[in-house]
Amino acid sequence: MKPGILTLTTDFGSDGPYVAQMKGVVLGLAPSTQFVDVSHGISPQNIAEGAFVLSGLIDVFPAGTVHLAVVDPGVGTDRLPIAARIDGHWFVAPDNGLLGGLLTGRSVELIVELVNPALRRPVVSATFHGRDIFAPAAAHLLIGGDARELGPALTQLMSLPGLEPCEAPGGILGQVLYRDRFGNLITNVDARMLAGRAWRIEIAGTTIDSFAPTYGESLPGTLIALFGSTDRVEVAVVNGDAAALLGAGPGTPVRFRLETHR
Amino acid sequence: MKPGILTLTTDFGSDGPYVAQMKGVVLGLAPSTQFVDVSHGISPQNIAEGAFVLSGLIDVFPAGTVHLAVVDPGVGTDRLPIAARIDGHWFVAPDNGLLGGLLTGRSVELIVELVNPALRRPVVSATFHGRDIFAPAAAHLLIGGDARELGPALTQLMSLPGLEPCEAPGGILGQVLYRDRFGNLITNVDARMLAGRAWRIEIAGTTIDSFAPTYGESLPGTLIALFGSTDRVEVAVVNGDAAALLGAGPGTPVRFRLETHR
Amino acid sequence: MKPGILTLTTDFGSDGPYVAQMKGVVLGLAPSTQFVDVSHGISPQNIAEGAFVLSGLIDVFPAGTVHLAVVDPGVGTDRLPIAARIDGHWFVAPDNGLLGGLLTGRSVELIVELVNPALRRPVVSATFHGRDIFAPAAAHLLIGGDARELGPALTQLMSLPGLEPCEAPGGILGQVLYRDRFGNLITNVDARMLAGRAWRIEIAGTTIDSFAPTYGESLPGTLIALFGSTDRVEVAVVNGDAAALLGAGPGTPVRFRLETHR
Repeated sequence: MKPGILTLTTDFGSDGPYVAQMKGVVLGLAPSTQFVDVSHGISPQNIAEGAFVLSGLIDVFPAGTVHLAVVDPGVGTDRLPIAARIDGHWFVAPDNGLLGGLLTGRSVELIVELVNPALRRPVVSATFHGRDIFAPAAAHLLIGGDARELGPALTQLMSLPGLEPCEAPGGILGQVLYRDRFGNLITNVDARMLAGRAWRIEIAGTTIDSFAPTYGESLPGTLIALFGSTDRVEVAVVNGDAAALLGAGPGTPVRFRLETHR
Repeated sequence: MKPGILTLTTDFGSDGPYVAQMKGVVLGLAPSTQFVDVSHGISPQNIAEGAFVLSGLIDVFPAGTVHLAVVDPGVGTDRLPIAARIDGHWFVAPDNGLLGGLLTGRSVELIVELVNPALRRPVVSATFHGRDIFAPAAAHLLIGGDARELGPALTQLMSLPGLEPCEAPGGILGQVLYRDRFGNLITNVDARMLAGRAWRIEIAGTTIDSFAPTYGESLPGTLIALFGSTDRVEVAVVNGDAAALLGAGPGTPVRFRLETHR
Repeated sequence: MKPGILTLTTDFGSDGPYVAQMKGVVLGLAPSTQFVDVSHGISPQNIAEGAFVLSGLIDVFPAGTVHLAVVDPGVGTDRLPIAARIDGHWFVAPDNGLLGGLLTGRSVELIVELVNPALRRPVVSATFHGRDIFAPAAAHLLIGGDARELGPALTQLMSLPGLEPCEAPGGILGQVLYRDRFGNLITNVDARMLAGRAWRIEIAGTTIDSFAPTYGESLPGTLIALFGSTDRVEVAVVNGDAAALLGAGPGTPVRFRLETHR
């Protein structure tokens, strides 16, 4: 039997012991798990950034993968711990909007609340549900356990406002979701929305007049917009750092206006 | 046969090639090893911080796990390379105090010095015993080799002064052991020592009057003390950064005084 | 069958989603892959640093290991995506000099261009060949696929100027290739070139008169030169940070002069 795959996305930092403690709990229950660390560098308690990172996983991992996500400012309060099956993938996370970026165009097949004490650690701390609730639930799914044993079904996921762009006078109003290590700014607007028409892009007081097919076809230092690896609009500087140049980052508004003179 | 688990804790940094070189050596000898990186961000040559991080592993990993730890300012001098079995877990490390945080309440079952040249790399460099001595020894244990083949038994581990709190006039004097990514300050005082009585906590010129059950039950910005995920006292700011607020970090004294008026 | 080993070396950063996306693609095609992250912290688009890190892998990983390397400022332009077998190891990378540090004294056994569309992702983005071209090619090799199915053979790898030291009046002129987390400066000059003779080393306006056998045998704070873990000359400060002390880093010239009076 091939081992189950568990991806991990948290704001715990790569340098601390918390991620390893979750993996230790998983390995005690599901010994042959194939771990893939997605990111432990989500900005502390930034649910929207976590939601963006999770949104890129379904298309590249095999069906049946379990995705554990912990960005959890409300740990110890009344937000619910859940598992959800979305397009054949399992997500185990707090129900605080973290899965909100996954909903558009996806099929939510099942949601359960994680309440079965037999599928939690014997003692549940007030501060580390990743280790005590989410890791054992993920292990249960990794070894092929029935999700309905985890707890009762829920009917709806909490969504996160502002992850989707909206119509605005003369165009579309979006925002930057993510700044990558190169300073590229990934927005929440994708190719499908722009429908092959010609747009000008306004961001941080600057206008970009057209799309470049790739980083390599403009001169170094040029500010460009292009469709990135997930078909979202990215704002970049060729061989440079757009985030630093523009003083922009997650949350910065990005306005798309239809070109009227061509 | 399920693969052996090897955890790794070092001060090498995640971004350099040194960790991968150790893993390459292990995989040449123990091909199906399940690696778990605990931390490679221990502050350079900070043995006490490494000792703290190691202390959280035994309770979450399965018995039989091999834990490789390299924080080794004395590499190339006369500190001994060792393997130790503690409560059914294997630790492979320099004998410089790194395992000192594991001793309280644990059973040290065997200690051996790593001297057998057949279980080292053929050429041992002066600067990288992690690759040349510790990795091959860990691989030997991962494939079920006899620890006594590694070298002669020793009777005692070096301990590290200051990891344990002490009695002081009017209470207990402890210290901060670790600052996590959220700025939470984890101390060396645990719930057992406080025995359910009422304490005031003094740290960095500030007094905290009581314990909060969880991060989520006080107002954002409140400085709180709580029992963290390993039952140690943590000092935290709700949705904030206690280390930054207090100017405190590893080594900062923390004084616990019994409340006299209740 | 033991799982194939895939090492990964990129400039993507550990904290972003790009590395996990490559792993997801690999796992869809080669389910039991043993991943080893070498570094995702190569300075953005710094091919020479990537080449240095790759040069340490052949001697520690088992033959047959696949090494995926993506430092790719020219993604989307006409640089070729390739796979190369060198001394029994596979390297999958852009042909931009990244494999240049591997060539000295090694045997290049086969080079192929990655053009077979059946062994790429169905849609190849302009910006992320790591996921769309290199990851599927690596997976093909990991499951024992024939490299010649990937594309036509090439006869030569692009090399990178300046990775090798040169003869200079009175000695050898090298440079710093890498700064590790401790501030140690690893140069491109190795023990073999110095042939057991006595040298003075000049770096950043300072002279070092002799080699120390190990970090631990000089007083803390002493600037020393020693042969590091790959037999290259390293410049270090005992229990300190040579890079900070000297204001030196990758690219800093290092001059070796023969001692004339002994």
